Amino acid sequence: MSVVDRIWHRCRIATLAPSRQGLGVIEDGLIASRDGRIVYAGPAAEAPDLDARERIDCGGRWITPGLIDCHTHLVYGGNRAHEFERRLAGASYEEIARAGGGIVSTVNATRQADTAALVAAALPRLDALIAEGVTTLEIKSGYGLELATERRQLQAARLLAEHRAVSVRTTFLGAHAVPPELSGDKDRYIDAVCETMLPAIAAEGLADAVDAFCEGIAFSPEQISRVFSKARALGLPVRLHADQLSNLHGAALAASFGALSADHLEYADDAGIAAMARAGTVAVVLPGAYYFIRETKTPPIAAMRRHGVSIALATDSNPGTSPLTSLLLTMNMGATLFRLTVDECIAAVTREAARALGLFAETSSLEVGKSCDLAIWDIERPAELVYRMGFNPLHARVWRGTPDAVAPSRN
Amino acid sequence: MSVVDRIWHRCRIATLAPSRQGLGVIEDGLIASRDGRIVYAGPAAEAPDLDARERIDCGGRWITPGLIDCHTHLVYGGNRAHEFERRLAGASYEEIARAGGGIVSTVNATRQADTAALVAAALPRLDALIAEGVTTLEIKSGYGLELATERRQLQAARLLAEHRAVSVRTTFLGAHAVPPELSGDKDRYIDAVCETMLPAIAAEGLADAVDAFCEGIAFSPEQISRVFSKARALGLPVRLHADQLSNLHGAALAASFGALSADHLEYADDAGIAAMARAGTVAVVLPGAYYFIRETKTPPIAAMRRHGVSIALATDSNPGTSPLTSLLLTMNMGATLFRLTVDECIAAVTREAARALGLFAETSSLEVGKSCDLAIWDIERPAELVYRMGFNPLHARVWRGTPDAVAPSRN
Ligand SMILES: [Zn+2]
Ligand SMILES: [Zn+2]
Repeated sequence: MSVVDRIWHRCRIATLAPSRQGLGVIEDGLIASRDGRIVYAGPAAEAPDLDARERIDCGGRWITPGLIDCHTHLVYGGNRAHEFERRLAGASYEEIARAGGGIVSTVNATRQADTAALVAAALPRLDALIAEGVTTLEIKSGYGLELATERRQLQAARLLAEHRAVSVRTTFLGAHAVPPELSGDKDRYIDAVCETMLPAIAAEGLADAVDAFCEGIAFSPEQISRVFSKARALGLPVRLHADQLSNLHGAALAASFGALSADHLEYADDAGIAAMARAGTVAVVLPGAYYFIRETKTPPIAAMRRHGVSIALATDSNPGTSPLTSLLLTMNMGATLFRLTVDECIAAVTREAARALGLFAETSSLEVGKSCDLAIWDIERPAELVYRMGFNPLHARVWRGTPDAVAPSRN
Repeated sequence: MSVVDRIWHRCRIATLAPSRQGLGVIEDGLIASRDGRIVYAGPAAEAPDLDARERIDCGGRWITPGLIDCHTHLVYGGNRAHEFERRLAGASYEEIARAGGGIVSTVNATRQADTAALVAAALPRLDALIAEGVTTLEIKSGYGLELATERRQLQAARLLAEHRAVSVRTTFLGAHAVPPELSGDKDRYIDAVCETMLPAIAAEGLADAVDAFCEGIAFSPEQISRVFSKARALGLPVRLHADQLSNLHGAALAASFGALSADHLEYADDAGIAAMARAGTVAVVLPGAYYFIRETKTPPIAAMRRHGVSIALATDSNPGTSPLTSLLLTMNMGATLFRLTVDECIAAVTREAARALGLFAETSSLEVGKSCDLAIWDIERPAELVYRMGFNPLHARVWRGTPDAVAPSRN
């Protein structure tokens, strides 16, 4: 008889195994873990004889993979609530920029914050995500725009994983905006990103991937190509903020570099989506930003389905365009605003989000050999995770085989 | 020296006192309570000598009035997540209705639930509201559509206040929809509402107000007038679901009966808003329903401001068109979707919500003599309550002068 650490039984499981239909539901399921890995996930009736140190009766609750937030800017200094308030009171973007607002205010506050301050500021935001069952998240730099601060952001992101039972993937987003001191000299900044910043970050092993922002207000496809070529030379996978506000053919550009993902995509065209399908690039759609900036053009979901592009959802948690720290609400927005189905939404914050991070072999679907990252829910059916707004039915969370000591509470 | 029960000090207070500008902010404030009532709320430096049984150091945190959700349908049976799922998968409203979905499914499930089941189903929803600082909420009937079940819904609503430290106001919404067994005979049902149901509910003291749904798919202005006349004869104040999907001049109708509030109002016209201003009828806007049903016409906020109509915000928490249990998210939607300012949003879930319930003299603004209902927040400025999405910065909640034993957690 095989000895395991823990068994969860009397549960319904949404395995998200790609070999199974829809959510891969198992009605009377059982999951067993050893050394943090899943050693069995399937029908209780078909489970082998297992001797477990601990058996957890789930009382008929649902188990899904732990949620994955695959696109966040969670680590930053400062607070943009006041800017939001002034804009509602009628201030124009120009007035706010002149008063030191906008992304520059976040860059300045992030540059002034030390690592401990960045960690302390991010922890409540991380706790809000964890309280809803998040077990893995991605965190980008991009508010330093010079090496020391970009490095500090990534270090803070890595440190968060020492403060909480969660997996963190880091992304270097040096090419996020032009640093204010360079007065718009984008090429000179891209020189610095490629020749100084990226090599240093790569040498220190601080980033798992490289991202950039392709947009008129940010960087051109040519500038992005330079960054991506350098990333490739350094052996780092790439992702792209693509076609959010206009169509610069960012989707096709990302695909041409075999990017893990292209993100936002409101203005992507059919050729771009087709290129993503061929390259296996995941579409990460971000309804929180769409909602918050009151965009009216939705990403081309029908084209993504037609071409068979994998669709992920993420919070895009950031102070300027998506101060959102709920992946459950993100799912509701994906359904309500983008008309994703329930199964698409749940896959989008588990299996497809893992693909966007290059982590599908490591975690997400509940299959033998993967990390035992689980969310256990007080629900009657998975649709409730998408349907409700501002309600958290998480019963328990398990990260690498270990349940949280106390049920996570919201702050 | 005056003896009080409790003092909260080292706090910034948004008093919402109408005599003060904006949120009525006091930078270094102090609040004292005795027998559940506020006996002082103002600058610490100007406080009289007080001997307190308990002094609570708020560490510089912000205190607002406890939040008030003035329009909910929190008590019901069943679950409509599956219907949401089917609609996303492409089912039409007709297909769902034929399969027993829509409001009829909630009516059937509510009729089958006993009082204890209704209380048990509503408690997690209530807990989500309380966890964000709600101290008072309104709950409507309207899923029974016959006397016994309408009565049971109102009894369950009243019972919730015995299970939790919260004030509940009940509203009889018999004229919500035509009961399925009457095959569309609206006049016959209105006869029953006026002649049997309303008198019985009033005699038993189960309702604090009477509501109705004025819409093509519900009841005509003439039918509503019959209900409101009866309510007036029975001494009950009225409210109205008005002009949500079309303009039937519901706003003016509500005003003509001196209604406490007219709610939704997307299609209300200027004459209706002007009539509300003259009558002192509060506009309760419900962005959760607007968002969930993907309405594109926003309520006439500019006209409300111009005529000086009081604006409240509420969740409209209900299973069909607004499965929303977060007043913080409601504020964000009020700002993002309806362009309400930060001060308007915060007043809309405190002072103006109290006015919509006829409770302004009893609670909401932090003034001497009122119920000591407080929300204490871990924020730097009140704008954060509106700006963030899916984040709960509540530090502590106080109802009738008594702090919650443990910090409320989200489920
Ligand atoms: Zn982003
Ligand atoms: Zn309603």
